[in-house]
Amino acid sequence: MSSRAETTADEQQRQQQQVDIEETISRLESKKGVESVTVLTKDGRVIRTTATTEQSEVHGKLLSKLARDAADIVEELEPQDELSFLRIRTKRHEIMVALDHSYLLVVVQSPQKD
Amino acid sequence: MSSRAETTADEQQRQQQQVDIEETISRLESKKGVESVTVLTKDGRVIRTTATTEQSEVHGKLLSKLARDAADIVEELEPQDELSFLRIRTKRHEIMVALDHSYLLVVVQSPQKD
Repeated sequence: MSSRAETTADEQQRQQQQVDIEETISRLESKKGVESVTVLTKDGRVIRTTATTEQSEVHGKLLSKLARDAADIVEELEPQDELSFLRIRTKRHEIMVALDHSYLLVVVQSPQKD
Repeated sequence: MSSRAETTADEQQRQQQQVDIEETISRLESKKGVESVTVLTKDGRVIRTTATTEQSEVHGKLLSKLARDAADIVEELEPQDELSFLRIRTKRHEIMVALDHSYLLVVVQSPQKD
């Protein structure tokens, strides 16, 4: 494949990812009780957020570290196993961190009945 | 209150805690899909477990650290808030860590449908 064709394919893939992210965010954002939705790279950089910039950056820094620590623990407990989801329930919120191959999806919502 | 009376009161409280732990364990252990139940001190010492000694000690060490890290993050995000529950979903299991004032209750079960 020529390098021009390669860039076009990469560009198309990047645009498709962008569309997927926007669809995911608008779907989640409309759900009852959802306070914010943030898409992060695995190392915590904010790709897109409905929270304030400051809040999303704090979430990015703290929750990506916690997700990495949890993933390491899961691997240490059982090498063939893999972390897929982290749910942090507090007195005031519920923070959900979904792990994808290249992204972390963070949803903060008011606590839901179990 | 005389020191003798104090010791008896402490002893009664300790025994009641023991009874509560045993009841909690037998209630949880009988639930479908539950693989193990472990009661830990906040710093990860095993008080009681239905898992192997070795497994419960690894859980104690790793999950108490993760719970402490998560609790610190929750406090940093919102000082008046407090971590109450952590659910770690992996490809093969679901690990739930419930935080009580003085205990951590760890339940490992096969993944449940959300």
